[in-house]
Amino acid sequence: MPILPIDGGRYGTKEMLAIFDDQKKIDYQLQIEGAAAISQGEIGMIPKKSAQNIFSTSKSGKISVSRVKQLEAKSDHDTAALVEALSEKCQTSARPWIHYGLTSNDLVDTSTSMQMRDALSIIEPKVARLGILLAKKAVEYRDVPAVGRTHGQHASIISFGLKFANWASEMEKHVERIEEIKKRILICKTLGVVGTGSLMGAKAIEVQKRVAKRLNLFPAEVTTQIIPRERYAEYVFQLALTGSTLEKIAIEIRNLQRTEIAEVAEHFKEGQMGSSAVPVKRNPIKSERISSLSKLLRSQMSASFENIPLWHERDLSNSANERFTIPMCSILLDEMLETMLRIIDRLRVNVEKIEQNLYITKGQIFAEFVLEALIKKGVPRFVAYRDVQRVAFEAHDKGMDYSDAIKADKSISSKLTDDEIDKIFTPKSHLGAAPQIITNVNNSVNRVCKKFI
Amino acid sequence: MPILPIDGGRYGTKEMLAIFDDQKKIDYQLQIEGAAAISQGEIGMIPKKSAQNIFSTSKSGKISVSRVKQLEAKSDHDTAALVEALSEKCQTSARPWIHYGLTSNDLVDTSTSMQMRDALSIIEPKVARLGILLAKKAVEYRDVPAVGRTHGQHASIISFGLKFANWASEMEKHVERIEEIKKRILICKTLGVVGTGSLMGAKAIEVQKRVAKRLNLFPAEVTTQIIPRERYAEYVFQLALTGSTLEKIAIEIRNLQRTEIAEVAEHFKEGQMGSSAVPVKRNPIKSERISSLSKLLRSQMSASFENIPLWHERDLSNSANERFTIPMCSILLDEMLETMLRIIDRLRVNVEKIEQNLYITKGQIFAEFVLEALIKKGVPRFVAYRDVQRVAFEAHDKGMDYSDAIKADKSISSKLTDDEIDKIFTPKSHLGAAPQIITNVNNSVNRVCKKFI
Amino acid sequence: MPILPIDGGRYGTKEMLAIFDDQKKIDYQLQIEGAAAISQGEIGMIPKKSAQNIFSTSKSGKISVSRVKQLEAKSDHDTAALVEALSEKCQTSARPWIHYGLTSNDLVDTSTSMQMRDALSIIEPKVARLGILLAKKAVEYRDVPAVGRTHGQHASIISFGLKFANWASEMEKHVERIEEIKKRILICKTLGVVGTGSLMGAKAIEVQKRVAKRLNLFPAEVTTQIIPRERYAEYVFQLALTGSTLEKIAIEIRNLQRTEIAEVAEHFKEGQMGSSAVPVKRNPIKSERISSLSKLLRSQMSASFENIPLWHERDLSNSANERFTIPMCSILLDEMLETMLRIIDRLRVNVEKIEQNLYITKGQIFAEFVLEALIKKGVPRFVAYRDVQRVAFEAHDKGMDYSDAIKADKSISSKLTDDEIDKIFTPKSHLGAAPQIITNVNNSVNRVCKKFI
Amino acid sequence: MPILPIDGGRYGTKEMLAIFDDQKKIDYQLQIEGAAAISQGEIGMIPKKSAQNIFSTSKSGKISVSRVKQLEAKSDHDTAALVEALSEKCQTSARPWIHYGLTSNDLVDTSTSMQMRDALSIIEPKVARLGILLAKKAVEYRDVPAVGRTHGQHASIISFGLKFANWASEMEKHVERIEEIKKRILICKTLGVVGTGSLMGAKAIEVQKRVAKRLNLFPAEVTTQIIPRERYAEYVFQLALTGSTLEKIAIEIRNLQRTEIAEVAEHFKEGQMGSSAVPVKRNPIKSERISSLSKLLRSQMSASFENIPLWHERDLSNSANERFTIPMCSILLDEMLETMLRIIDRLRVNVEKIEQNLYITKGQIFAEFVLEALIKKGVPRFVAYRDVQRVAFEAHDKGMDYSDAIKADKSISSKLTDDEIDKIFTPKSHLGAAPQIITNVNNSVNRVCKKFI
Repeated sequence: MPILPIDGGRYGTKEMLAIFDDQKKIDYQLQIEGAAAISQGEIGMIPKKSAQNIFSTSKSGKISVSRVKQLEAKSDHDTAALVEALSEKCQTSARPWIHYGLTSNDLVDTSTSMQMRDALSIIEPKVARLGILLAKKAVEYRDVPAVGRTHGQHASIISFGLKFANWASEMEKHVERIEEIKKRILICKTLGVVGTGSLMGAKAIEVQKRVAKRLNLFPAEVTTQIIPRERYAEYVFQLALTGSTLEKIAIEIRNLQRTEIAEVAEHFKEGQMGSSAVPVKRNPIKSERISSLSKLLRSQMSASFENIPLWHERDLSNSANERFTIPMCSILLDEMLETMLRIIDRLRVNVEKIEQNLYITKGQIFAEFVLEALIKKGVPRFVAYRDVQRVAFEAHDKGMDYSDAIKADKSISSKLTDDEIDKIFTPKSHLGAAPQIITNVNNSVNRVCKKFI
Repeated sequence: MPILPIDGGRYGTKEMLAIFDDQKKIDYQLQIEGAAAISQGEIGMIPKKSAQNIFSTSKSGKISVSRVKQLEAKSDHDTAALVEALSEKCQTSARPWIHYGLTSNDLVDTSTSMQMRDALSIIEPKVARLGILLAKKAVEYRDVPAVGRTHGQHASIISFGLKFANWASEMEKHVERIEEIKKRILICKTLGVVGTGSLMGAKAIEVQKRVAKRLNLFPAEVTTQIIPRERYAEYVFQLALTGSTLEKIAIEIRNLQRTEIAEVAEHFKEGQMGSSAVPVKRNPIKSERISSLSKLLRSQMSASFENIPLWHERDLSNSANERFTIPMCSILLDEMLETMLRIIDRLRVNVEKIEQNLYITKGQIFAEFVLEALIKKGVPRFVAYRDVQRVAFEAHDKGMDYSDAIKADKSISSKLTDDEIDKIFTPKSHLGAAPQIITNVNNSVNRVCKKFI
Repeated sequence: MPILPIDGGRYGTKEMLAIFDDQKKIDYQLQIEGAAAISQGEIGMIPKKSAQNIFSTSKSGKISVSRVKQLEAKSDHDTAALVEALSEKCQTSARPWIHYGLTSNDLVDTSTSMQMRDALSIIEPKVARLGILLAKKAVEYRDVPAVGRTHGQHASIISFGLKFANWASEMEKHVERIEEIKKRILICKTLGVVGTGSLMGAKAIEVQKRVAKRLNLFPAEVTTQIIPRERYAEYVFQLALTGSTLEKIAIEIRNLQRTEIAEVAEHFKEGQMGSSAVPVKRNPIKSERISSLSKLLRSQMSASFENIPLWHERDLSNSANERFTIPMCSILLDEMLETMLRIIDRLRVNVEKIEQNLYITKGQIFAEFVLEALIKKGVPRFVAYRDVQRVAFEAHDKGMDYSDAIKADKSISSKLTDDEIDKIFTPKSHLGAAPQIITNVNNSVNRVCKKFI
Repeated sequence: MPILPIDGGRYGTKEMLAIFDDQKKIDYQLQIEGAAAISQGEIGMIPKKSAQNIFSTSKSGKISVSRVKQLEAKSDHDTAALVEALSEKCQTSARPWIHYGLTSNDLVDTSTSMQMRDALSIIEPKVARLGILLAKKAVEYRDVPAVGRTHGQHASIISFGLKFANWASEMEKHVERIEEIKKRILICKTLGVVGTGSLMGAKAIEVQKRVAKRLNLFPAEVTTQIIPRERYAEYVFQLALTGSTLEKIAIEIRNLQRTEIAEVAEHFKEGQMGSSAVPVKRNPIKSERISSLSKLLRSQMSASFENIPLWHERDLSNSANERFTIPMCSILLDEMLETMLRIIDRLRVNVEKIEQNLYITKGQIFAEFVLEALIKKGVPRFVAYRDVQRVAFEAHDKGMDYSDAIKADKSISSKLTDDEIDKIFTPKSHLGAAPQIITNVNNSVNRVCKKFI
């Protein structure tokens, strides 16, 4: 019976789950043993024939999780069990050379790097795809004036596309960040018990370089027994940060889908139930789920930070929690990205409602522009400010249209003609640089993201 | 293939895992449906016969996870599916009365309360048992003088038992805390969609009271659609706090087991391997695992806090992350308690080494008592302090025994006789109130904890 | 020039700030020295006359921060400096008996307990007052039907007063929690260097008991050099938890004050500016500030947890961060409470708008009640559900009033008369148990909270 | 009276504090007003003469904090007050053009970028200097064999210099990270109320580009009212991550300075007191303080993450907490770096003790190498492992020297000559690749870091 919702099948794409299951972990570690042996053979550190035998056995598919678990039950040591299981399938002469100069943690950490490598190879294209999709939406709604809200209040006019452009741009930055951190987190470490290369002497550096190359990783420059945990914190941070951007988008959708706002709606499947008690609701549950998982993702940062200051050449107090945080963060961010791609792709944007909402305040949203027009006419900013505010408050109290109120107010109408006032109260006049910004973002996002999908 | 180490079988006792599996969650929710129906029948809100039929069907064992999942696949709504699955097994006349006046979340939140109720009924006795075990160890080592260390430095003499007494006392406090929070977190809520009791009217309060009693929970006083998430934060905090005390113990064991200190050692199984590369090590891996999981536990607090300020009568952004945090924290703390009980029970305490360590500083550990003796002789504190320090530094530099140095120093030896000095350098003289404190703690811990085991 | 906004005067009430300034810290510590001396004198541990002299000097007001700082500059040790400054003002014969049997940290930790004692004595009455104020508002709006929203969507009818009742009740729980934790966090510890009572022997327990009583604290049962940091985590948690409830309220106000909802508004000062660019906005900035500070408050939990597992009889790695977290959390929560009291007290509730909002969905908010009416008429729940939903979606698409659509739908109108339908579409009919719940909460909150104000 | 220890003078270098005081904040914001005006003048958006007047007034030093505070007291709006204060000192004709097209938050966020710019210009050179200093120490102790410890247990031989090399290399990575994030966090934003450039139209992009260049910042590509808070999270993360590396170093020093290990010691000032009660202790208090502040630093991450998903074009719930987190993290990391530079520079390394510690286990630390020697002789790994372990345990129990025990054990001594055994038990033989690694790290660190100091 499944317990946690990842094993229960609720969250996680098939491709991402595959990276973190027990057999795959063992396969990664066997690959490392094979790569180490063949590299050591190449430079004459161990007999070529033995190296070849270990290498081919390691990828033979003959070493099963169940055999490893069986051996682990005896020794209470998982790596020792793996080495023994591999040993059983190798020629007798090759056996002494298995795991030569290595320590358990060379396998543990390097295989985690391989998992992160593969996880990023799933995540990065989705981030890139999302960036491009958002940029496309930005362009689509570039010329749609919409309410811009600050403090939950109508504040000014934006281009509706600008919302998407902001998100698209941050996705571009996430791709940029992922590219930057790879060299620090996808690390191959085969320097043995305490990072000296143990028995391999100075040649340990060459071995590690060759193993890293075979595994498509970066060789460690210096380590203790383990790869520095700053690197893992960087990985978890990057995933949590991406998750927080997704939550930013999700919260915007949840807010714009409010009954009272209704500018967008998540796609609603035929036959889907909104609530067991209230049938008519169309809840933004996908976005809510993203919000929820985002909190969980970033919550894992504390443990990741606390793993950095271990004792001496390492202690084990990072180990058990990383068994959760690394797969959880990878699997959940991937799930969230999938969900967000689907949300955005099928998002219903109600352009009519967006336009209607511009008039909820009866024109007060144009106040900023009245203010500026007055200033341009030479009215001191603070005089203008007080006038604009005063008339706005009066109009509000009387339920009056703001443009009418302005036309009726002497101190303002003496400065602005009715024609000038009418121009001010035209939404399309106030998109400012937004269209150009959107165009620029679209170009930039496509330039950066396209190569990753 | 399992992914996370809870489903993979690495962490979690059988009894605790059982609380959180999918079938059990459904059983809890059926219990609530049954308890609601029978309570509503009792007060004439729904037909007695229907109530009885729903009640007996709900505990018939005939509603399976697989059927519920099947129905959920159609509706995308898990509670609707559960209600439908129950409905299928009830008489036609009873069907309209299933889930009467309730909303999905009445089941979700109340069943989580039932899980927390059962989880605490497993955790609390272990906390209590650990408290008593630690108190016993405190008494056992009450009269063993040992080095007290502050800042990692030898500071003064303690009773070795005092370490255990501190931990025992905190376990007593954890029992006290658990008792206090139960009334706030083990909440039954059947007040419907938005906490008004919906269709049941004012009688909803009576129904909820009866359901709560049947489920051994506390009726909610007031809610929105959901139980306030302050309560869940309190639960997670209490588990994380207990975990942090366990980590405090674990870190002490790890430090005392250091090769250079060697005052205690975790039990070491015959045939167990310490390291794939270094055979002779005896690593405190159980304690290290507790440290690691403790970081993970407390890391979940952020998400728990962030779930508190939901929107209006609720939003769903708590839901997905609670599917992880509540079971993870419950299962892992239970695992940690089990581990700690085993560690303490079989802990090897090396009394000989404890005694030897007292003399590592060649007597400097007694400096505090020399200081006080001088003050009692009328030497001003600051004069005495400088003398004690000066002689200590000199003795240290010369590798000299501190008592000899003191006897040789005129400004001190003119105040204290050799006999007085010898008495100062006797560890047993410096246990102070520790034996009495330990006795008091032992009594108090037993008084509070015994009734829970 | 001030740096942080507490010292800059932006946040913090005068009374709370006074607890944490440098002079006050020294006064607290002098009080402890005095209480220790007089207690030791009482039981004949030190000469009565000296005890009396130390006691009276400690409260003479003659020991200044500046003198202590001067002495600290020499010794790099703040407690030593305090003891020396006190010593300078005492009789020569009393000097050896100052700080007798104590260690620095007895002063540090016990004075922090005194700060927490005084901070809670400011915070608790405000929590209680807020509880009562909220309960009063709950009663005031008990009979006002309002939209209940889940997932940001209109879901059902609530009593507007129910919102306040939920918050009032949680304030009652906070008072309850504060009362419970006091015995664990307001701890007096005078057990010396390593918690053995040092030189005082078994009598240390009696001394500590007397000192605790004088300081209105609880005597420690067992300690290392320090009071267990679980206690500090409990304090910070309680403050952060209260802060999160305040944020829950704040977010509700911010949401209800949205331009599109406008059910409430923070009081707006004449002449206050909403924005430098947009004059007409009335931003809920007080509530936003509470949200912001709440995030900061709960963010301090990680450090508080990490301080628990110190090494051996203590290490110093808790010290520097507690200089921030304890005052910051105390001062900021107090500030937030003040702000919330002011917000609620002067909150503008727009009852007219609350009523209008009920009709935004053209009656669809009553769907839940149509569903139940059908079920009561014997329609199977799932048939009824599909009908209710179908008609709702159709009405929505056509912009039709939901009650009209229902009357026009045969499968529904064949079960319900027009009169029955009209009764369903009356908001006041759907307050359910809310009025009774509010009455109960009001009674309970007043019973618990009144004694604290 | 100061409250928090930053304003109290306990923490913070003069240069860093200067960035965050109230006057400096205003100066930064005036610089932005000036840069905006002059840029707008350059492209003919506002009158050149006015632009020039605003520009020169903004840097005239005539606008004081006290005047701004005075005006703020009236309007409750800090930016409005600043603009008014600047306006008072400008020519009447220039006044309408002050703050033209800008919004308050353009000043707030851009001035924070300027603070971060200046903070990094202080922090980065110290990180670089620390990297180079650590690399120098690594080289200094390159050939000193020392105990390598894992799990707190003696595990194998390392070069003592390798510890420093690990830290040096991570400092190099921190410089690399700082360089990478600058382009994302040092952002100039002058796009007005909702990120459209408001009144400036498409030319807003050109204005922002020019302002950014003058302020040595990067122009924003797209924003809402505010710069995305992902960027602030990145800043806080980078500071917290650097802090965690410093804590890693600090914990190693604290552990190595333990009375029982004593391989290093922090410099101890003459006359400094270790403890008010125990005169002879030499506590690693500087390292402990770094540990403590590091916990505080990383604790601020939660708030930083939570600030990312704000509502719509912004809400204010980031504002109050950023007033703490940005200065606190900057000031404290700088303090910690200063402290660590001093610790490392004056660190006492006891080479003699390092050598002695190699022999605490009576040769068992060489077990790894005995194992490998046997394997090379053709003994199967698991046979060898069991033998090595068995003899080690026996020797341990008898208190025997491990090399003697091996020579006396037939199953081992039949494979290895006494001469071979003696060679194994020579520490210098086991430095492996460490010297080469250290040399490489030294080169790399110097190459990367030198240009920043």
